[in-house]
Amino acid sequence: MTKHLISLAAALALATPSIAQGDTETPPSPNEIVAQAQADEWVAIAPEDLLVMTLAPDAEGNERKVVIQLMPAPFSEAWTANIRTFARSGWYDDITVNRVQDNYVVQWGDANYDNPEAEGEPKGLPTGLLQTSEDQYTIGFKTLDALEDNSPGQDGSSQTKTGLGAPAGSDFNEDPGIHEKDPYAPWVQFWDGWPIGAEFEGENPPFWPVHCYGMVGVGRNYSPDAGTGAELYTVIGHAPRHLDRNIALVGRIVEGIEHLSSLPRGKGVLGFYEDESRRPPILTVRVASDLADAQKPRFEYLSTETESFARYANARANRSDPFFIYPTGGADICNIPVPIRRVAE
Amino acid sequence: MTKHLISLAAALALATPSIAQGDTETPPSPNEIVAQAQADEWVAIAPEDLLVMTLAPDAEGNERKVVIQLMPAPFSEAWTANIRTFARSGWYDDITVNRVQDNYVVQWGDANYDNPEAEGEPKGLPTGLLQTSEDQYTIGFKTLDALEDNSPGQDGSSQTKTGLGAPAGSDFNEDPGIHEKDPYAPWVQFWDGWPIGAEFEGENPPFWPVHCYGMVGVGRNYSPDAGTGAELYTVIGHAPRHLDRNIALVGRIVEGIEHLSSLPRGKGVLGFYEDESRRPPILTVRVASDLADAQKPRFEYLSTETESFARYANARANRSDPFFIYPTGGADICNIPVPIRRVAE
Repeated sequence: MTKHLISLAAALALATPSIAQGDTETPPSPNEIVAQAQADEWVAIAPEDLLVMTLAPDAEGNERKVVIQLMPAPFSEAWTANIRTFARSGWYDDITVNRVQDNYVVQWGDANYDNPEAEGEPKGLPTGLLQTSEDQYTIGFKTLDALEDNSPGQDGSSQTKTGLGAPAGSDFNEDPGIHEKDPYAPWVQFWDGWPIGAEFEGENPPFWPVHCYGMVGVGRNYSPDAGTGAELYTVIGHAPRHLDRNIALVGRIVEGIEHLSSLPRGKGVLGFYEDESRRPPILTVRVASDLADAQKPRFEYLSTETESFARYANARANRSDPFFIYPTGGADICNIPVPIRRVAE
Repeated sequence: MTKHLISLAAALALATPSIAQGDTETPPSPNEIVAQAQADEWVAIAPEDLLVMTLAPDAEGNERKVVIQLMPAPFSEAWTANIRTFARSGWYDDITVNRVQDNYVVQWGDANYDNPEAEGEPKGLPTGLLQTSEDQYTIGFKTLDALEDNSPGQDGSSQTKTGLGAPAGSDFNEDPGIHEKDPYAPWVQFWDGWPIGAEFEGENPPFWPVHCYGMVGVGRNYSPDAGTGAELYTVIGHAPRHLDRNIALVGRIVEGIEHLSSLPRGKGVLGFYEDESRRPPILTVRVASDLADAQKPRFEYLSTETESFARYANARANRSDPFFIYPTGGADICNIPVPIRRVAE
């Protein structure tokens, strides 16, 4: 009965690096594997793919910034282009967080939009928005394949990206077994740092991003509407994978999700705030590449086409760091979050 | 671009009953199926299995109560007995929430316990605690089987509980397919209202509860320690199923989880609060059966051995209510939360 607080800390730790230090018999934890990854296994995120969303300060006056990484082409390109248009036109400035539903989503946008109880007028939309359509929720294999053929790897070589983690020729090819056991997709894998579902039948089988914790998606009306990007949500609970292929996913939160996930839950239907004074204001949303260098956040992710990522994924699926007594021998794709870190100035 | 706010409401709704009203062609949503379940498909939760945990009021003076349902025998019996002992001796009174880690857990207990930086003395333990051991993280099939043979169903008949949902002889036997595609367990199912993993090989294969959102578990030290029940946690993120069979699960939160999941995240290692004044105080924890009738909460769950539950689970796996354009054809067990509702006085 000793070490109780530390005990649960260890019990639930994603990593306890201090414990394994000097103990060469102990397999490294997932976080230790990430910490030991080589510098060239990390990929810088383009500033054009980062959004900085600044909420009004909290009740104690603390700053609240949320950084969102947009998905790279060819996924959801019309929506990510629109999102940059909304951000650059200032359209997102002074919108609000309107909905916080426990174990589901936080949603933000123009609270006056299509709201019969709204007292204000909805904002007019910026010019230059692209048309979106639901057939863009997935990307055909041929599109991805053509992109890979033309896209050099970090070292200038062409890399194969259709497996999980380990590049061809790697010493490490253990498979954490996420492919065969996904309840929602015939195949799941990581592609350029993102969790992706796939089919492998037919002439041009579809690939699509999946709804894991922290992923960002686009609100829409009933089909065939596919949303513009004016209204966004992020996942703050167990992965609602039934939304896959039903809504456009456009990115993920890479820093500051706690400013959204710890907001008071809305008391209205579906977690909407009934009292408009409860809606947390969003002051600005900026594309990082438009910010002055000193304000520009810099992030990198662990390439999912590296040996370190493969080892990390495998360690997540077979926990053998000191706390664990039973490695489960598998993992679902949403329990293998892609490591992302802020780069110091 | 009309109906934007409502659009995402519909998009992300667990149910939109108003939409389907009068439209007999539209398949019912999961929540509509639950709403239409017969009264005798619901099972009252014994007051002996309910804990009422009262946190100090929030900054605005609002009451914060969390109701926890303890697991029934034969799962985790030593820990649930201890938890009643802790509650009845008043041991939990004036403990604190000590850790809130985003997308993982909220943890509460005696902050002075095994805390080298603590200024206060740890509480002495109550008498009468049972010994726990890690071999009790699972229950052998023979134990479950014997229990079922001796346990009458609600109508006095013996029921078979080894399938998902539909009782023998039901008109509805579609399988939502959660069995074959679980990445963590050879078999998963619902048993007496709880999500359970299982093996089916060997003389006496193990069955165990699984870590879904809102499940409550017991902090422990390194193996062979298995924890007493003094320190508890609940899941507030994507199901950390790698903890299955590694820690004792003892229950789930049936009301008020938002009072824990929306707490500010701790800024220390693993989400511990570094500043002790940040720790939300827990005023009391009471077993509901010890409360006066007027204070006694009453809850019931939809029996997982009913046709309505089978239909609900299947609808969760094959969303065909109006918003959805693509039914995924599967679900993971943590995306089929067992319906639980408060019973009016």
